[in-house]
Amino acid sequence: MENILINITTLKNAIKHNDAAHIHLLEQETYAPDVAVFFNDLNDKEAQYVYANLSPGFAAEVLLELDEEQREQIMSELTSKEIAEQIIDNLDTDDAADVLNELSEEKQEEVLAQMTNIEHSSDIVDLLNYDEDSAGGLMAKELVQANANWSAQSCIVEMRTQAEKVETVYAVYVVDDDEKLIGLLSLKKLLLAPQGAMVKDIYDQDIISVKTNASKEEVAQLFKKYDLVVIPVIDTIGRLVGRITVDDVVDVMQEEAEKDYQSMAGITGDINENDSVFESLKSRLPWLLVAMVGGVLGSRVIASHENVIRLHPEMASFIPMIAAMGGNVGVQSSAIIVQGLANNSIQIKDITPRLFKELRTGLLNGLVCSSLILVYNLFTCDTLALTYTVSISLMSAIVFASVMGTFVPLFLNKYKIDPALATGPFITTTNDILGAFIYFTVGYFLYGMF
Amino acid sequence: MENILINITTLKNAIKHNDAAHIHLLEQETYAPDVAVFFNDLNDKEAQYVYANLSPGFAAEVLLELDEEQREQIMSELTSKEIAEQIIDNLDTDDAADVLNELSEEKQEEVLAQMTNIEHSSDIVDLLNYDEDSAGGLMAKELVQANANWSAQSCIVEMRTQAEKVETVYAVYVVDDDEKLIGLLSLKKLLLAPQGAMVKDIYDQDIISVKTNASKEEVAQLFKKYDLVVIPVIDTIGRLVGRITVDDVVDVMQEEAEKDYQSMAGITGDINENDSVFESLKSRLPWLLVAMVGGVLGSRVIASHENVIRLHPEMASFIPMIAAMGGNVGVQSSAIIVQGLANNSIQIKDITPRLFKELRTGLLNGLVCSSLILVYNLFTCDTLALTYTVSISLMSAIVFASVMGTFVPLFLNKYKIDPALATGPFITTTNDILGAFIYFTVGYFLYGMF
Repeated sequence: MENILINITTLKNAIKHNDAAHIHLLEQETYAPDVAVFFNDLNDKEAQYVYANLSPGFAAEVLLELDEEQREQIMSELTSKEIAEQIIDNLDTDDAADVLNELSEEKQEEVLAQMTNIEHSSDIVDLLNYDEDSAGGLMAKELVQANANWSAQSCIVEMRTQAEKVETVYAVYVVDDDEKLIGLLSLKKLLLAPQGAMVKDIYDQDIISVKTNASKEEVAQLFKKYDLVVIPVIDTIGRLVGRITVDDVVDVMQEEAEKDYQSMAGITGDINENDSVFESLKSRLPWLLVAMVGGVLGSRVIASHENVIRLHPEMASFIPMIAAMGGNVGVQSSAIIVQGLANNSIQIKDITPRLFKELRTGLLNGLVCSSLILVYNLFTCDTLALTYTVSISLMSAIVFASVMGTFVPLFLNKYKIDPALATGPFITTTNDILGAFIYFTVGYFLYGMF
Repeated sequence: MENILINITTLKNAIKHNDAAHIHLLEQETYAPDVAVFFNDLNDKEAQYVYANLSPGFAAEVLLELDEEQREQIMSELTSKEIAEQIIDNLDTDDAADVLNELSEEKQEEVLAQMTNIEHSSDIVDLLNYDEDSAGGLMAKELVQANANWSAQSCIVEMRTQAEKVETVYAVYVVDDDEKLIGLLSLKKLLLAPQGAMVKDIYDQDIISVKTNASKEEVAQLFKKYDLVVIPVIDTIGRLVGRITVDDVVDVMQEEAEKDYQSMAGITGDINENDSVFESLKSRLPWLLVAMVGGVLGSRVIASHENVIRLHPEMASFIPMIAAMGGNVGVQSSAIIVQGLANNSIQIKDITPRLFKELRTGLLNGLVCSSLILVYNLFTCDTLALTYTVSISLMSAIVFASVMGTFVPLFLNKYKIDPALATGPFITTTNDILGAFIYFTVGYFLYGMF
């Protein structure tokens, strides 16, 4: 939202002058996510002031949009009663459970004890039992359901009551007398229902649902594959227990994509831009150390050819190139595989044809690159042995890296290890060592021949 | 969907025995995306047979889920009249426009001329005018709208008519007499409206909309920021012209994430797992050639120190490690920046504090790594000069790479160049050259001293 009346300067000014009217204007003119963006530029006291002057419903929404640390800071100033009444009561059950999950267990219990809306609090307690990374952990309790034996008319009446609790009605879930999910009634069908129709006559039995114990990745796959907006969640015996909406799943997809991206960059664990230097170090140093161990091993390979280098110092100049090209090709191949596995577009049974395809691509890439470097070296390099060594070892390193970059992620995936680990530093480091090995082995033979 | 009766073997068998009943079972028991998955394992003739035996509505949905090439293959066997009646008439306007966009212009016109539903075809023609990468290109025409001056009662009656054309009703958009979008009426509010209420009394004026010419990336940002399920699209003077649903936006987000991922892996252009070897080559060779040019430049740097290497061949062994560590650190830093920019969580004004923060992280990472390698070399390396050269140049290369990895993507972004270009091969290659340069410069001084 762009608004010429409200920006970070006017806001900071209003806070300084204790101008609560400006905060009310902020609430009227913007949405909670916009206010949350302003919080990034406020200090703790300023943030506290803005928060205190928002209406509780809006304040709770803003709180949800903040970074975990900012949220913690604001909540640390509130009593359990205030958290219960101002925040938890104003949030949907899934968001309420997420906020509570960030509190210590004692604090959680204190807050829950302060809640006056028993239905809301028991729903939340229910949700707290599920693993955060499962469908149960993602779902909310707010939904509209209808019994198959109701009439369409009484369904609308019943919906009016249920809808008061539910922010957006996506669909009406149809259950049998045992609360088991048996289908879906679109609002459209309900609106178009003839007089006297029963729910069981007009509902749609085709419904995609997910069990509470499905992983959040499985949930995201279902949303992507079937273009869903909301999915009902059922327990082990098929009873309807909640629903997951697409906005939560978008966050899961985002996280997954970021995790794979970071894996390739050699960054581990949860990171965010506001991390302290120490936190940055924790996420980056592990792979750097792995790479350094690899570098040391590579240095041993080269050192073992010290006599060759003493005789032919010109050989040293192409070591990094051979190593780097292998690394680049390996990263390309492994990235394709990791992405295909993440999309579910590559299956385990594809291993052999895929290896052969990458092998062909590798051969062609290698052929182009090693021919070009051959021409370059024929013109610029005095030593014919080096010229051929570079081209032959480049070709071998590229082909080898193609196969390895394909095989390793497929292999890891087969053994339920995150294939993304095979991209980035691991593959580059391994190829550095192999590249040096191939280079000197080829050189050993060719220098012997010329 | 798992179904023991239907799998690729039974399906292929049914096709061989001309068993149309099995195809009907497939249609009953699965969803269009499931059938599309089977198509990956069918040859053209088999695919044709399955397609011909699906009901037109379901067949059109399956067609949408196929790869572009598979879709092309199936459509090439159909007349313009069949495409119009069996496919386009059965699709929502946005999907219909996407499918038509894949045809040649003449074929497009032929198909449109065959359409009998004039409203549908004129809506589609409208959509074809928009840039595919804009909000106009993403939107569909199917929506339910109400005039602010209607009564809630007549609104429900009118909705019944409109809803027959619209698959899912997410919300009712409220417009004024000039068709300008002025707000939103939730189905919930409509259901809960008191007798005799007017739309203007109960609608919500708070509505987030997007202009037709907004880029698809901007649309995706709005969905993510405001947790939207659907967004109305307006023209330059504020008239309601369409709506975009979250499933299309999820595809945009996915594409963006994949593009960044591929950039880091040194893969350019559109790729998919079924690409031919030649297409793979086209997407991978460009960065490999860039990297090779970098490698050649690096080899010049090293070659210019050939005399040093002849005297001190042990120096060669650590060249790849110094280069690789710089590359790894550079990729980490640039990945953080690219991701932050993609998330909108890093702003241009953050450049200076961010550079300083990365510098501090780089200093610490460098300190840890170079101390460890110092200890290792003190024990294993006979040459004190080399021991110190490795540690000092490693430290310098890491610090330098941190700063460069931060600065380059921010700089590119400032000049509207995709910052993701700075990750991957570019940053590793640059650091390979710089690493070698730093290493030999430090070595030159230290070997002089010891």
